[in-house]
Formats: sequence, C-alpha cells, structure tokens
Amino acid sequence: MEKQNRSGTAGKVIRCKGSAVCRNPGEPLVIEEIMVDPPKAWEIRIKILCTSLCHSDVTFWKISIGPFALFPRIFGHEAVGVVESVGEHVEEFQEGDMVVPVFRPNCRECRDCKSQKGNGCSIFGDKLVAEMPRDGTSRFKGMNGETLHHFLSVSSFSEYTVVDVVHVVKISSEFPAEKACLLSCGVSSGIGAAWKVADIEEGSTVAIFGLGAVGLAVAEGARLRGASKIIGVDLNQEKFEIGKKFGVSEFINPATCGEKKVIKEITDGGVDYSFECIGLASLMEEAFNSSRANWGKTVILGVEMHNTPLAINTYFLLRGRTVTGCFFGGLKAKSDIPILAQKYLHKEINLDGFITHEVNFQDINKAFDLLLEGKSLRCIIWMD
Amino acid sequence: MEKQNRSGTAGKVIRCKGSAVCRNPGEPLVIEEIMVDPPKAWEIRIKILCTSLCHSDVTFWKISIGPFALFPRIFGHEAVGVVESVGEHVEEFQEGDMVVPVFRPNCRECRDCKSQKGNGCSIFGDKLVAEMPRDGTSRFKGMNGETLHHFLSVSSFSEYTVVDVVHVVKISSEFPAEKACLLSCGVSSGIGAAWKVADIEEGSTVAIFGLGAVGLAVAEGARLRGASKIIGVDLNQEKFEIGKKFGVSEFINPATCGEKKVIKEITDGGVDYSFECIGLASLMEEAFNSSRANWGKTVILGVEMHNTPLAINTYFLLRGRTVTGCFFGGLKAKSDIPILAQKYLHKEINLDGFITHEVNFQDINKAFDLLLEGKSLRCIIWMD
Repeated sequence: MEKQNRSGTAGKVIRCKGSAVCRNPGEPLVIEEIMVDPPKAWEIRIKILCTSLCHSDVTFWKISIGPFALFPRIFGHEAVGVVESVGEHVEEFQEGDMVVPVFRPNCRECRDCKSQKGNGCSIFGDKLVAEMPRDGTSRFKGMNGETLHHFLSVSSFSEYTVVDVVHVVKISSEFPAEKACLLSCGVSSGIGAAWKVADIEEGSTVAIFGLGAVGLAVAEGARLRGASKIIGVDLNQEKFEIGKKFGVSEFINPATCGEKKVIKEITDGGVDYSFECIGLASLMEEAFNSSRANWGKTVILGVEMHNTPLAINTYFLLRGRTVTGCFFGGLKAKSDIPILAQKYLHKEINLDGFITHEVNFQDINKAFDLLLEGKSLRCIIWMD
Repeated sequence: MEKQNRSGTAGKVIRCKGSAVCRNPGEPLVIEEIMVDPPKAWEIRIKILCTSLCHSDVTFWKISIGPFALFPRIFGHEAVGVVESVGEHVEEFQEGDMVVPVFRPNCRECRDCKSQKGNGCSIFGDKLVAEMPRDGTSRFKGMNGETLHHFLSVSSFSEYTVVDVVHVVKISSEFPAEKACLLSCGVSSGIGAAWKVADIEEGSTVAIFGLGAVGLAVAEGARLRGASKIIGVDLNQEKFEIGKKFGVSEFINPATCGEKKVIKEITDGGVDYSFECIGLASLMEEAFNSSRANWGKTVILGVEMHNTPLAINTYFLLRGRTVTGCFFGGLKAKSDIPILAQKYLHKEINLDGFITHEVNFQDINKAFDLLLEGKSLRCIIWMD
C-alpha cells in the first residue's frame, strides 16, 4: 500500500510548473510546464531547492550529433533538494529528507562499491547519458506527451526530478542549501582528486592545469594537505587573483611563457602532482611532462572534448611517473559527501568562495552566459 | 697512500686477457686482450665471476646509428664478481668482497635515494649510455690504445671491469654466484615490479604481456603475493609450459585469439594488474586496455623499441585506471637486492628456474644466439 505524503502528491504525476527544457543543441533553455511521473521502485522524487551549472552540462548541451545528442532534454546535475515522495523498496530516504543527487552511482552492494579502492559501481556502471538506470525509461513528459530525456541520472534543471536511490546522498537539513549543491559534482571532484586519488602529502609541489571550479577545488584540497607550492596554469590572467583564495601560490599563463620549462625550473625538475582539469589531450600531455621523475603523479579530471588519446612518452613512464584519472574525484558519494559536508561545517574547507553568482530559475540562461564567458566559477540557480 | 692488494695489481693497469669486445653493431663479439685502468676515486675494479645476457644488451648491440651507437664497446650488465681493488674514498667495499653491479645508481645521499618512493637517483640520473658517471671517461683501452666504451655503467663482458660505488651492491660470499648474477637486472626487475610498483595483493588477477625472463619474474612475484589468476600472453606457445613453473595459470597466444576479449572474459571485466615486458607501444596499449575499471593498474617494464608514444584512451583513465612504469622494478639496489637474496636463501623465490643454459666465456656469442632464437631465459656465461 502506498504511503501518502503531506502534499498528497505521492503516487501521482506532478504537473511541474517550471522545468528548463533544452529543445535543440546549443539553444537557450526554455522554461516549460512538464509532467513528472511518480518514482518507481528504488527511486525518489525530489523537489529541487537550488542547482548550479557545471561545464559538463555545457559540453553535452553543445553536442549536436551522435548518440549523446538527445533532445529535448533536461540538463543539470549539481543540486540539492527535498524528497517529495519515495518509490517501493526505498528505505534509505523518506519525505522531507534533504538530499544531494550525484551522477556517479554508489549502490554499496557490488564488489566495486564495497572495495576501498576507486569509486565505480559495477552494477550501475557509467551510463553517462542514460535515462533512469533500472528500466531505461524517462520520468519526464512534455504537456503534449512527448518524452523528455534525462541527463546524467540527475536532471536538476526542473522543479521536480526523479532519481534512483543509488544516485542520492542524504545531508543534514541544517546544511546551507547552496553549499550542499556544490558538493554534488565539481567541487567534490577537485577536492577528492587531491585527497583520495593523488593523496597529496605535506610539502608537496602541485601544478593545476585549468583554474575553473574543479581546478580551484584541487588547489583547495592541496592547500589543506599542506602543499608547499601550488602552481596554477590558465590562459585567463584574472584566475590568478581568484586562485590565491584557494591556495594557488604561483601562476603561469602559457600565452606568455612556456609553462613546462617554468614548472621544471621552479620545482627543481618537476612537480610531485599535476592535474588536468580542462579536457584536452595536449594539456594532459603537458601535465604529465611537468611531473617529476621517480614519483610524479598526474591525475586527469577533464573529459577529453575531441576523443583524442593521450600520447605518453614511455621513457618518461619508465622513469617512475604515473598517470591516472577519475570521475567525481574518486569519491564514493554515499560515504564521502557527508565527510566533506562535515569538514565544511568545521570550517576546514572553503566552499563559499566558489559561489560567484546567484540567479533565479527563470534567468537560468544567464548562468550559461556567465560560464561561457569565463566570468563565473559557480552560479547558484534558485528555484522560486 | 695507496693500499696494496694481495695480487699486487692495485693502482696498476691490468692487462686483461679476456674481454668480449663488440667492434660493430650486430656483429659477434670478439674476445680480445684489453687494458683496464685502476679505479679512480669512488670506483672499484671487479673481477667478474659470471655474467648473463639480458635483452637490453641485445637492443643496444643492434643500434647502428644515433648517440646510442657507440663502438667499440664492452656490453654486459648482469653479473657478479669479486672486488680486486678500490679507489680513493671507497669505504663501503674492500678487496675480496663479493659484489653485484647494477645499472641503476643508488647514491643513498640525494633526495630521491632517501625517499621511500621510486628508485631514481637525482645525482647520478639515468645515464643509460654513459662512461664512468663522475668524469665521463672510459677505464678500458684496446692494446693499440684505442678507447673502448662502457655500457650501462657496468660492462661485465670482461674479466675485469671498473664500476662506480653507486652502481654496486655487496652480497654474501656464500651466495651461489650464478644466482647472484640474476639479481643484477632482469629477475629483480620483474619481481620488484610485482612487489613494489604494482604491490599486488592476495587474490588479484594479473596479466603479463611477454614471457621472457622479466615477464616470468613478474609471474614469480605475483605467485608469491597470492594472485588468483596469472595470465601469460606470448606468441611463443612453448612459454606456457615454462610459465607454469613460475605460477602462470592461463596462457593466451594472441596469434590464435584476441587476447583483450579473452582477458576481459576470464576476469569478469579486466585484470587488477597488467604488465608489459616487451617494449612495444601497441602492446602497452593492449595491457592498459586489459586492466579493469576502478583500480586496474598497468606497469610498463619494456623499453619501447621505436620510441613510439603510448596512446591512452582518456575515458578509460577517467574510469579509474592507472598506468606507470619502472626501471629495475622500482627497487633501490643497495637496500632491496639484499632482501631478495635473503628470500632466495630462505627458499621463498625461485631463481634456479631462470637459468636455462650455461656457457664458458669464449662461447659468449652462443648466449646471443640462444636469446635471439627465444630458446633461453638466462644463459650464465662463466669466466674461465
């Protein structure tokens, strides 16, 4: 028997007055009324409080051909919301819980989720463009009955969304919503890469290629680990001033000097850890080449935009360098997001500095403009 | 004042009756009488007991153009010998010590040598084709006065050789000479890669591309760590029977089946650890692709023969795979060779199985033939 919720909406389709639908690639989103199905088994329906725009949204928003070009679609994957109702078999969540959706699944049952290593899920995999993960169908319909596609199992640019329980983490309702939203993807990815994947030690030297929110979060993670030098590499000169707030101690603009040589010079042979946070194979190679022999480790966070392979000098590898990569900073969402949240409450991590803009939901396209112009780190989009 | 040795040769040039000189690339070595200078400061002169042939000798022996083509030259870098005399400032060794020379320097003073990580030496570097590391000159002359080049700081295909102290490890004189010789390069490299670089855990799955002595030593290391599956990949079908002695539990011949698919099938998605022990970029890529998402680690041991870069699918990296590489298995020669020697004496490692042939020094070219024909793992070459 279905358990009714306070608003009486459980088990019913919600006519959702505000969803930002992307009808065609690269076009401004259109705020539309849509229908959101009730959650099926192991799913929850979430009323979004606020969401933010991440580069991955923009990357997929632009894609016009191939299997990833799915339109009309509801983007958005960084968010925080409140559980409106839950489907069958859901015991982990109940109506009213404050939750953070996460694109990276964490079932906690499979061999990978149970392992101490990595953060993949061997049951739910990496279905980057999937609809609901268990049955492959959508919970969104336009008012004319057309199917609207999901994005990254989250689709947070909507007043209501439906998310599988493996993609949701509970968070204290006292946690500030806009800060919780940041833990959903980019900022966690950067901090996680610095802490869990690189495992930076005190006194280490670090180079970060690309000082967007992810790169700056790597800097924040490195700073907290006591890195002695945090070198930021970016074509945008303004990023240096911003970077200083997150611990960036030296800045290199490749437009005005060869970053590789400079990095080797100021670190006596190369950095202990380098991070690529853009998604360009050529920059990944630069990051790798800037790492020191013997124990230099390069962590790739950027999703390569052109599917170009990374070309590695094998002799540099033989001299003891390592290259690895991660989605979501190697964090296991269900266990690691609460740890990050706790560290924020204990004033150990700076989340506030990532929020450069805030807009109302009807102005969501402004968030796109700000990110495309390189003006924002994170723009919080508030539901009305 | 110079300390004289028992044979009265200290401080004098030795007319050495047997050195196998390579006069031209790819040509049989010629046993010649040569002159070996006394050791300078921080050097020791060693009377070689036995030496063995490694693939790297053959690789450089074939090179006919470029900066690595240095002839006439004395090859050989796997050996064991007895100290004949020592140069100034040498306190670590004395006449009569049994020693193993190692191409990888270990000064124990620099930041890299003092670190727990890696096995590079930031003072002595990786001078793969150097003469004596401190002054860049040779200690070998032909009877007509011509300079003979050194190889990998060892040059063991000679009755006497001079080696810098950073390239030498003392070993108990009771240790069997031909087994000590094996610890000098290939076998240590394989075991070290399995233990120190990959750090294989019990129950892991392992794939080894190339079942020469190095690949089989990786298998031996994996077997001792309790790997549950050790998959050997080789074009030579006979390597399977040999591999079984070192723990290889399944065998794939890529000539008769696509190894990638087979490995993914028999390991439920890929191996925990893969090793490339040949030196081909295409095979390194296969090794990487055969590793599992989330924590798969690929270790490159082969020196790429054509200087081709390794091309990596960056999406595979983002899913949590790692690629790294090492010279000499990541072992620090001075501290780790004694540990391996101890493990042999305690019957924990199988060294005996690597010795497939033994020849006298005058038959050294037979060792080349056996290796080139894929018939030998290690051929011990005994000094007379």
